[in-house]
Amino acid sequence: MKADRIFNFNAGPAALPLTVLEEIQDSFLNFGGSGMSVTEVSHRSKWFDDVINDAIARVKRILNLDDRFHVLFLQGGASMQFCMIPMNFLGAGDTADYVNTGTWSTKAIKEAAIQGKSINVVASSEDRNFAYIPENIGFNANATYAHLTSNNTIKGTQWAKFPETGGAPIVSDMSSDIFSRPLDMDKFGLIYAGAQKNMGPAGVCLVIIRDDLLARTPTDIPTMLRYTTYAEKNSMFNTPPCFAIYTVQLVLKWLEETIGGLDKMTALNQQKAGLLYDYMDQSGFYRGTADKGSRSLMNVTFRLPSEALEKAFVAAALENGLGGLKGHRSVGGCRASIYNPTPLAAVEALVDFMKTFEGQNG
Amino acid sequence: MKADRIFNFNAGPAALPLTVLEEIQDSFLNFGGSGMSVTEVSHRSKWFDDVINDAIARVKRILNLDDRFHVLFLQGGASMQFCMIPMNFLGAGDTADYVNTGTWSTKAIKEAAIQGKSINVVASSEDRNFAYIPENIGFNANATYAHLTSNNTIKGTQWAKFPETGGAPIVSDMSSDIFSRPLDMDKFGLIYAGAQKNMGPAGVCLVIIRDDLLARTPTDIPTMLRYTTYAEKNSMFNTPPCFAIYTVQLVLKWLEETIGGLDKMTALNQQKAGLLYDYMDQSGFYRGTADKGSRSLMNVTFRLPSEALEKAFVAAALENGLGGLKGHRSVGGCRASIYNPTPLAAVEALVDFMKTFEGQNG
Repeated sequence: MKADRIFNFNAGPAALPLTVLEEIQDSFLNFGGSGMSVTEVSHRSKWFDDVINDAIARVKRILNLDDRFHVLFLQGGASMQFCMIPMNFLGAGDTADYVNTGTWSTKAIKEAAIQGKSINVVASSEDRNFAYIPENIGFNANATYAHLTSNNTIKGTQWAKFPETGGAPIVSDMSSDIFSRPLDMDKFGLIYAGAQKNMGPAGVCLVIIRDDLLARTPTDIPTMLRYTTYAEKNSMFNTPPCFAIYTVQLVLKWLEETIGGLDKMTALNQQKAGLLYDYMDQSGFYRGTADKGSRSLMNVTFRLPSEALEKAFVAAALENGLGGLKGHRSVGGCRASIYNPTPLAAVEALVDFMKTFEGQNG
Repeated sequence: MKADRIFNFNAGPAALPLTVLEEIQDSFLNFGGSGMSVTEVSHRSKWFDDVINDAIARVKRILNLDDRFHVLFLQGGASMQFCMIPMNFLGAGDTADYVNTGTWSTKAIKEAAIQGKSINVVASSEDRNFAYIPENIGFNANATYAHLTSNNTIKGTQWAKFPETGGAPIVSDMSSDIFSRPLDMDKFGLIYAGAQKNMGPAGVCLVIIRDDLLARTPTDIPTMLRYTTYAEKNSMFNTPPCFAIYTVQLVLKWLEETIGGLDKMTALNQQKAGLLYDYMDQSGFYRGTADKGSRSLMNVTFRLPSEALEKAFVAAALENGLGGLKGHRSVGGCRASIYNPTPLAAVEALVDFMKTFEGQNG
């Protein structure tokens, strides 16, 4: 780490690759020879066209998307998608399945219900405080879509494998694990992801939508809430969040060109999470909160023997240049978010610190 | 201007104060001693709390807002407000007045109509291609609000004085002239403004809303589309567009501390626009397209004797370090957008170039 920077384990907004930050900084007063900052160039200019088109091409390449899929950039975060998805896809007589695996799934379910849409919560892990991902779910064969949250930042769980739905396309919130592993895209109808965890700053939400779902978009809902508006105008019906899209482009370039692609990214993520979980599992001091088969490779949630020790741990970690280790305010405890941009060195430094802290307090 | 930068007359995204860009650049790897980039800090941190609270305080101070008003930051630009305003304020039996002064008003009217809301277009300047601001308008005394676009970027017109509505609060799109002049806030119920013209980068929309309109927000519409969601959570129900809000904060700080406040900003804007209009009015070569009494101090629209000369003008200007002078694709001609951040030196350089070009081609 650079002398005046910390290792950042925040859950989002979160760490970005240092080389990406340096590239933004270096070109901030004169972007691409335009004589303007990237925050000043017109979204109708060749400079920005190059940015958004390269970002889209990289999304398609990294996830191996075929021509059925459209790559869109929206605003409002995943929370706006909670509302747009049922608004766009559920007409009279349609129903959708939802799986409840925690805070974000619960919010998605709530936004469908507010609109009076017909949905079925086909499984939930609420009985054990969302510490696991449900199995053997009875999905409805006639559902318009099956919604799930692929990774749960707050509870530290993740779908290791996506379920068979019996035909309904999966619609998934992937805000916290997009681009962390390969996907079998034949299963998915729509993927959405706020950028501020695995791919950029807050302020842009990636949506990948398949033709057949796009075709369901009604014409009698507000223009800015229709997926077709974004698909037909290359996400530029109105001014898009240019700076956030530009940063996403650079992070995806880093993933492809510096890391070496999605397979290498996946292996690195497994290595990082493995270091932490392996250490925790042999320790009697740190205790993981998620069931082993449901553990997230992105958000490692754990407890210490007491809340006083957890507080001391978070404070001492920050003094040692390791920030953002406090658990979500709704659950307490500790959490290390280790998204794509978090370097292996950060995780190694964290494990070293955990050993030292255990030695002093265990 | 700095050696490798141009003077930027784009309509939006547009020029930002150079000192603001330099401050962002200088602190980009370590924001406020956090050891993180401003794009990496948590929105639940003291660093970001300081940013958003200072931005809100500056908005209130600059516009002299009393306690009736709430300052919110939303996403989706002014276009999302076109939909949210009727959705939040027009229940069964309510009607609103709209004045149509161009492209953006037309879109606002369309989004109310899509939702089946009851609105009256009480005046329009479409008869003369929106070259003027209507006068002596018959507003409805019982309207829930009266909507107007304070400045029209495409047609180059601006309300020099806001109308008497007979009691209905004005709801105004001020995307392109917010903070350019003082406002009599007793007239306004809601003001909204995409940041990317007068106060920041694309990706955040400022909303100033009065208590009585906020109280109309229904509870049965999606959470992210309710103004109360933002008012109750200091605009952080979910992750806000942190970087864009941070830049707005710095631009408002620049307005207060470098320019010296809104009165000085107003005088500077009058001086800049005066230079351009005075030169055009004595020239037989350049012809302003807006009626004199309706001219915008922000977007100066003009024609040259032929489209060929306009094309040559825009190209030659860029060669001379003056960018973004092409008119909007829907109307053609030329346009110089001279928002708050555009320095006087830029306008002086433009007038000098216009003289030279007229001398060579007039």
